[in-house]
Amino acid sequence: MFHEAPKNLKLVFIGSGNLATQLAVTFAESQYSVLQIYSRTEEAAAILAEKVKCPYTTNIGALDRNADIYICALKDDVLQDVLSHASLANKLVIHTAGTLPMDVLSPFTSRYGVFYPLQTFSKNKRVDFSAIPVFIESNNDDDLQIIKLLAGSVSGAVYEASSLQRQRLHLAAVFACNFVNHFYAIAAGLVEKSDFSFDVLLPLISETAEKLHYLTPREAQTGPAIRYDNKVIDKHLNLLETDITTQQLYKLISEHIYKYGKF
Amino acid sequence: MFHEAPKNLKLVFIGSGNLATQLAVTFAESQYSVLQIYSRTEEAAAILAEKVKCPYTTNIGALDRNADIYICALKDDVLQDVLSHASLANKLVIHTAGTLPMDVLSPFTSRYGVFYPLQTFSKNKRVDFSAIPVFIESNNDDDLQIIKLLAGSVSGAVYEASSLQRQRLHLAAVFACNFVNHFYAIAAGLVEKSDFSFDVLLPLISETAEKLHYLTPREAQTGPAIRYDNKVIDKHLNLLETDITTQQLYKLISEHIYKYGKF
Repeated sequence: MFHEAPKNLKLVFIGSGNLATQLAVTFAESQYSVLQIYSRTEEAAAILAEKVKCPYTTNIGALDRNADIYICALKDDVLQDVLSHASLANKLVIHTAGTLPMDVLSPFTSRYGVFYPLQTFSKNKRVDFSAIPVFIESNNDDDLQIIKLLAGSVSGAVYEASSLQRQRLHLAAVFACNFVNHFYAIAAGLVEKSDFSFDVLLPLISETAEKLHYLTPREAQTGPAIRYDNKVIDKHLNLLETDITTQQLYKLISEHIYKYGKF
Repeated sequence: MFHEAPKNLKLVFIGSGNLATQLAVTFAESQYSVLQIYSRTEEAAAILAEKVKCPYTTNIGALDRNADIYICALKDDVLQDVLSHASLANKLVIHTAGTLPMDVLSPFTSRYGVFYPLQTFSKNKRVDFSAIPVFIESNNDDDLQIIKLLAGSVSGAVYEASSLQRQRLHLAAVFACNFVNHFYAIAAGLVEKSDFSFDVLLPLISETAEKLHYLTPREAQTGPAIRYDNKVIDKHLNLLETDITTQQLYKLISEHIYKYGKF
């Protein structure tokens, strides 16, 4: 166990998806070193290893033994299977998932924790990590300090959070990001039908997000649903009549907005 | 009828809500003059008239006769009632609504049109009008030029659009703004439950909007629904079990995202 902050943390990444890519690239540019990338898919492993200039392996039994932290950024349902083939007892292993409890790591090592960045990651869109909130957790205080150091090296917003808090944050993120993005996609389809470019929506989309720096979402709400403007709502439902599921969504959300506005 | 661009357009606002407020304040700062504000509510009329330094009235029969354009920014379902008490025959009257056809104005005057800014407006949050797309329409070419002049004085993005195109754009805006904002509100509630401040979501919200300058919404989609990550989805549905409507929304949208990703 460390009792002092190490000057150079050596990292191994287990996974090569969107999050692993953004993290590995960011850490490789920090004062810490990425020793190795593991991925089940050789192509993905090779691409990421090339980006961060380190070796890779597709053999989980061949993980570099010299890392200070093993960072698992894998799909939730394969994480345990992959780790069961690694020998990481007494190594510090952390996962990056929003909804997995920290304890899923306990069968594999005595030292474990979580590093959960609250952000959306695509492989080919770099993000500025410094403003991203990172939620951390560990089963022991010494390793919590190491994870804090790791997180603090890339982000100015590091918080301790329990597994339950993290689950709720992840659920919030699904609404604020994935579901929001899906509505951008639905809107894009409608704008296309009107023969304009999706770009005409960008100022509206930015302002809707930007407003939250000044108003709560409740204060910021506008549009036909909050006013219960039946004429507009009916016209919109008519326009959607060729797309039953989207029509159903429109109805359900409009009712939800109106009721929520009344609380 | 004008055949040349007037140097100074004189405007009367009929309405004093969020949109009327933002427009009147923006035009009062441009080279054009706001002659008068009409509103059914004296308080709202007085507040907006004070902001733009002009007289106001609550008597629709007492509208100033000298304006070049009468701009109606009223709730859709009261617009026709209010205008039926005004005497605006042969005056240029425009409305600002997304979903009302232009022709709703035809009973009241021979010269009419639409000025629809695709943006969300709150009374106390100024917006930068210059980037806002404005969709215009008129029943005659001369007035279309006047409306184009008016729109061009505040926005760099002025487009002609038919009433049907405008309806589709408005519907798209409801998804991209009102529904999106409602999900921000749901997310805010969840973050509160996790004992963190809503602020921890702001970088995620900004990035989700910002990404669209580089990726289509379809390319930008991430999260459990697009991966059909059942374990995560089930855990989220469990977390929502005390809130049946939100749970139902979560389910419906997750299915929609997954199906949509397959097209």
